[in-house]
Amino acid sequence: MSHATTSPDRRGSANEPLQSVLWAGTHLDLLDQRQLPEEIVYLQLHTSEDVWEAIRHLKVRGAPAIGIAAAFGVYLGVRHAEGNAEHILAEVNRHADYLATSRPTAVNLFWALDRMKAKAETHARSGEADGEALKAAMLAEAEAIRAEDEETCRLIGEHALTLLSDGIGVLTHCNAGGLATAKYGTALAPLYLAKERGWDIKVFADETRPVLQGSRLTAFELQQAGVDVTLICDNMAAMVMSKGWVQAVIVGTDRVAANGDVANKIGTYGVAVLAKAHGIPFYVACPMSTIDLNTPTGSEIPIEERNEDEVTQGFGKRTAPAGVKVFNPAFDVTPNEYVTAIITEKGVVKAPYGDGLKRLFE
Amino acid sequence: MSHATTSPDRRGSANEPLQSVLWAGTHLDLLDQRQLPEEIVYLQLHTSEDVWEAIRHLKVRGAPAIGIAAAFGVYLGVRHAEGNAEHILAEVNRHADYLATSRPTAVNLFWALDRMKAKAETHARSGEADGEALKAAMLAEAEAIRAEDEETCRLIGEHALTLLSDGIGVLTHCNAGGLATAKYGTALAPLYLAKERGWDIKVFADETRPVLQGSRLTAFELQQAGVDVTLICDNMAAMVMSKGWVQAVIVGTDRVAANGDVANKIGTYGVAVLAKAHGIPFYVACPMSTIDLNTPTGSEIPIEERNEDEVTQGFGKRTAPAGVKVFNPAFDVTPNEYVTAIITEKGVVKAPYGDGLKRLFE
Repeated sequence: MSHATTSPDRRGSANEPLQSVLWAGTHLDLLDQRQLPEEIVYLQLHTSEDVWEAIRHLKVRGAPAIGIAAAFGVYLGVRHAEGNAEHILAEVNRHADYLATSRPTAVNLFWALDRMKAKAETHARSGEADGEALKAAMLAEAEAIRAEDEETCRLIGEHALTLLSDGIGVLTHCNAGGLATAKYGTALAPLYLAKERGWDIKVFADETRPVLQGSRLTAFELQQAGVDVTLICDNMAAMVMSKGWVQAVIVGTDRVAANGDVANKIGTYGVAVLAKAHGIPFYVACPMSTIDLNTPTGSEIPIEERNEDEVTQGFGKRTAPAGVKVFNPAFDVTPNEYVTAIITEKGVVKAPYGDGLKRLFE
Repeated sequence: MSHATTSPDRRGSANEPLQSVLWAGTHLDLLDQRQLPEEIVYLQLHTSEDVWEAIRHLKVRGAPAIGIAAAFGVYLGVRHAEGNAEHILAEVNRHADYLATSRPTAVNLFWALDRMKAKAETHARSGEADGEALKAAMLAEAEAIRAEDEETCRLIGEHALTLLSDGIGVLTHCNAGGLATAKYGTALAPLYLAKERGWDIKVFADETRPVLQGSRLTAFELQQAGVDVTLICDNMAAMVMSKGWVQAVIVGTDRVAANGDVANKIGTYGVAVLAKAHGIPFYVACPMSTIDLNTPTGSEIPIEERNEDEVTQGFGKRTAPAGVKVFNPAFDVTPNEYVTAIITEKGVVKAPYGDGLKRLFE
């Protein structure tokens, strides 16, 4: 069973981004994202079952954050196991396979669990027979996964900062923030780093219908970190731009095609068109792992259509006539001509993207 | 007291637009818009107090519909009065002044009540001493106000139809529909007339955050009339346009400036920019009374900012962090360069608007 508890020490200082997954020495502290933005509740996870349940029930969301939680979940599973390295290896595999059943399509989850299993395998095959040492290696590997993700996000933020400046206004859509990652996030990373540097950046957060990630998560986490954030409805972005309040748009992405087309939360494409019409640069921030050179263009990216209830009764109350037809795509594709730059942990790429993105991988 | 009752005969046939205010021989039938889209309930209003209460509590909305209801309210107030024309005139003035207190800023309400008073005055001064005749004149005047509004809307629809064609897709924002007028509406008028002609037009209705008039009203009334309507979130309009599903955008307006700048529900400007980027014509439909030659440009139109609760807890449930800053403008201004044509009951005007709009009034 999870033990819900509020840990004020995990809230960070007024200038620190919230961290959603943190090892606390004897257990995992996990921010319960289902309760945001109303309640900041950290759950104490002590077992792999606790972690499985947290992933399954969306208490943790965001691909990197899920992967990190799962990696620590493996360690929690073997932490009190006793035996030689061979036995602990078997336990690692058992708990990893169990954790993999928590969400069937989360690629980052499988990636993190495979990495934990491979590490245990290597360790056990090295002839090191000490089970305790293997357990310690598992904790170190989970922490490495977390630290690497934090470093990736920090580097994305550093590179993005070279495109921004003190005193500007920035508009973002959906949530590509610290809650989904180890820390900092992707699109929001430069905003946290700017805050650390004492810059004064005014952020406009699109609420992002239908599921309101901008309202529930982005506005929340920026507010928590003391970043100046103003919440708007999606249809207000054009007016905010026309008033000259925005000098850059920065968003995350779910997949970048080889030609620089960008799939992201529904509404991103519209924001990109509006940005271009107002002469505002449109930046996409993402880890290298999001760039898929095997997808030639955006038209090969499948667009999931989701349940119409998100639109007709997304707030627990019906707000549309029964039986009305609804179009509810979860994502859209922004053609590369609208993308001013793609920002990764390895640096900034501008058009032409075909060459630039390939070069990142060399 | 109002007597709530469902009148199936007022729902119209499957191909008829709903009418929100209708004289029923002995009382006024009024569609309770507060209960939409969940319930179609017609209230039977028998007294001027019933009408006052219906206007005050937003059971009727839309400037023309409010004016029509108020006009019938005056008649309901004097209907059972007895006496000569002088006495009935005094009663008309008393009820009209009372009804004017129902909503303090509704220009159309005052216009309709003044018209009723002027008619009564003229009648009484004509030397016609018969109180019954004056009462009959009041009923006729209220019906004339209703019929003229229906005719205005129908003419707007006829002119708009010359810009559309069978088989196309049309996107609209907010609600400029029949519910707000005697019948047909303004932006929606051509869609109802197209339906009468047997045209197959596919309509996309922006839900129109924060108050969801598109979802609650536009999708509802088009669906009721058997028009093919698909509800989308505002941020999906760009994707729908990019797919080639939309050949025209048509919206209403709250005020047109002398240079053709258009104030309308927040989000309209963004839709206009997106339409231009996709090569889609952007039409504005409105009665002549909405064109204000005394307002030189859109920048002189004051933009009301509304309560932030509409954004943070617009659905009875908090969906944003407490204390977050919110920008919630009720309207935006679309510069004339984005407006392909303005459609009135007197005809269609295209750029340059300065001359074209002036000529409409000659």
